[in-house]
Amino acid sequence: MNERITLAEGAGGSAGEALMKDVIFPYIGNDILAEMHDGARLKVSGDIAFTTDSYVVSPRFFPGGSIGTLAVSGTVNDLAMTGAKARFLSAAVILEEGFPVEELKNILADMQKAAKYAGVLFVTGDTKVAPKGKVDGVFINTAGIGDIIEGADISPKNVKLGMKIIVSGSMGDHGATILAARHNMKSNLKSDAAPLNKMVEKMFAVTKNIAVLRDPTRGGLAATLNEIAKAANVGIIIDEEKIPIKEEVKGLSDMLGFDPLTLANEGKLVAFVPQEEADAALAAIKADERGRDAAVIGETTDKAVGKVGMRTPLGSIRVVEMPRGIIVPRIC
Amino acid sequence: MNERITLAEGAGGSAGEALMKDVIFPYIGNDILAEMHDGARLKVSGDIAFTTDSYVVSPRFFPGGSIGTLAVSGTVNDLAMTGAKARFLSAAVILEEGFPVEELKNILADMQKAAKYAGVLFVTGDTKVAPKGKVDGVFINTAGIGDIIEGADISPKNVKLGMKIIVSGSMGDHGATILAARHNMKSNLKSDAAPLNKMVEKMFAVTKNIAVLRDPTRGGLAATLNEIAKAANVGIIIDEEKIPIKEEVKGLSDMLGFDPLTLANEGKLVAFVPQEEADAALAAIKADERGRDAAVIGETTDKAVGKVGMRTPLGSIRVVEMPRGIIVPRIC
Repeated sequence: MNERITLAEGAGGSAGEALMKDVIFPYIGNDILAEMHDGARLKVSGDIAFTTDSYVVSPRFFPGGSIGTLAVSGTVNDLAMTGAKARFLSAAVILEEGFPVEELKNILADMQKAAKYAGVLFVTGDTKVAPKGKVDGVFINTAGIGDIIEGADISPKNVKLGMKIIVSGSMGDHGATILAARHNMKSNLKSDAAPLNKMVEKMFAVTKNIAVLRDPTRGGLAATLNEIAKAANVGIIIDEEKIPIKEEVKGLSDMLGFDPLTLANEGKLVAFVPQEEADAALAAIKADERGRDAAVIGETTDKAVGKVGMRTPLGSIRVVEMPRGIIVPRIC
Repeated sequence: MNERITLAEGAGGSAGEALMKDVIFPYIGNDILAEMHDGARLKVSGDIAFTTDSYVVSPRFFPGGSIGTLAVSGTVNDLAMTGAKARFLSAAVILEEGFPVEELKNILADMQKAAKYAGVLFVTGDTKVAPKGKVDGVFINTAGIGDIIEGADISPKNVKLGMKIIVSGSMGDHGATILAARHNMKSNLKSDAAPLNKMVEKMFAVTKNIAVLRDPTRGGLAATLNEIAKAANVGIIIDEEKIPIKEEVKGLSDMLGFDPLTLANEGKLVAFVPQEEADAALAAIKADERGRDAAVIGETTDKAVGKVGMRTPLGSIRVVEMPRGIIVPRIC
């Protein structure tokens, strides 16, 4: 194996075979992937979730993870948010000619670490190489399949008035970390990128009545709550004081002119649950190592249907708008 | 909607929502995609195939199709080659800032045309935008899920000595078409890019004893047969005179110094079937509009195990090597 990727590795000949066997397989390999068919043959429950995401984050490595961490966490989380037990992932990597093989190995190691934590297998994949300058380093797509958890019925149509809104931890950590890295700012911030499927399984163990589960990624909590308010045709009211946000995220957001509620999270969820089950759901989240700072932040209401309002510490209510414009490009 | 993609469409706010609703949905939308969850919830047989491919072809439009045609055909074909009835696709699009929306619409139209022909639905998707110069126009990933066809058991381990090798039509058309386009050569060549799932379903209707099905894409027939010879631990012998190759593909290959057996196909398959079922399988392929020129081109043998030999018209045998090196970059 060369030290850098060449076009040959993407051409479907012996070099591509060697990349697979010598570089990719030692990290994310298993018996199913080893068959190297055009596709993997799998046994599933028959009632499944299917999702896909491409990852183009810049920088590729950041405090708390890398594009590899995101590529697993993001897709596992999308499955979990559909009410599914994540099981199988695909990995499709587009590499730039000249990309260092060592860096690819580091990314693959992060992918495998997150996959192991989530308990999912890579079962099928693809590698393409684009000539120098035609892709920025590496882009990764992962698609995922999960078995729907028995009794799960996640849908905005199940949202009722008076439901409680829970977030599983502090908002904006990933977005703020990427911003700090891009601006070469010193900080103790760390991305929250992590698979949440175990947390979601804990939640379903205590209640099936979860109407909405969402991971507030691009566009942050602001985008997620606005989408749900619209789709569920309810008003949403949250309490500013109850939303966990780290002081350092607040400070960095102020300095750079961002609203932390619009910053991406990659290891947090938002849940809508009936009032009488909110305590149990919150306890289930807090029982997970990633959910220690979870909090009930608000509820659904019949006022200002389709909109999101936030009670400020002074008692006034400000509208939380759907983010517009660029926010932060290449955040995931 | 602007005439060109901006970074805002990739940021998870209102612009991304508009891109989805105004541009993407009118082409590839359906009731499942309309739910716009983090993932799609699907009913499948429980015994499924799962595959992924990224498409980075250059040029994006070529005689016979586009990156959109490939993005559907390639993934549907990978499912078919696993012995599955293709059902659901994901679509993850990475766009370059400034990409013309009109061109995206043309690509989406080709995706929908191929998906309709194949009878598959797009059920989940993702859109990212990379800044100008960070991705070359548009890259598309599609992953796919299919139900395994009852009785299908595609695996090199099922290859026996004396099995017949069938190709479903002329070799090298896609690769030669892309080469002609890149070299600005006038030609009547057309890419063969097309979904083959209907052809495969016709084959399984006449025999379940198909040991291998492969679409000879990158690396062409030469790579595919070498991989199978190695995986199945048999020798493969093919007849040069029996391999359908268009005169124009031969001429262009000669001129540019390529072996047509190493050129990619995007709408052809190779099948390994027992001798006594070869006629029935061949007839099933020929009954499909894409299989008119199908031919039996060789058989498996116990000589030169792991290698591929080709009988020339003069009676000698030349070794068909696994392609090495770059061949043709960004062919799919």
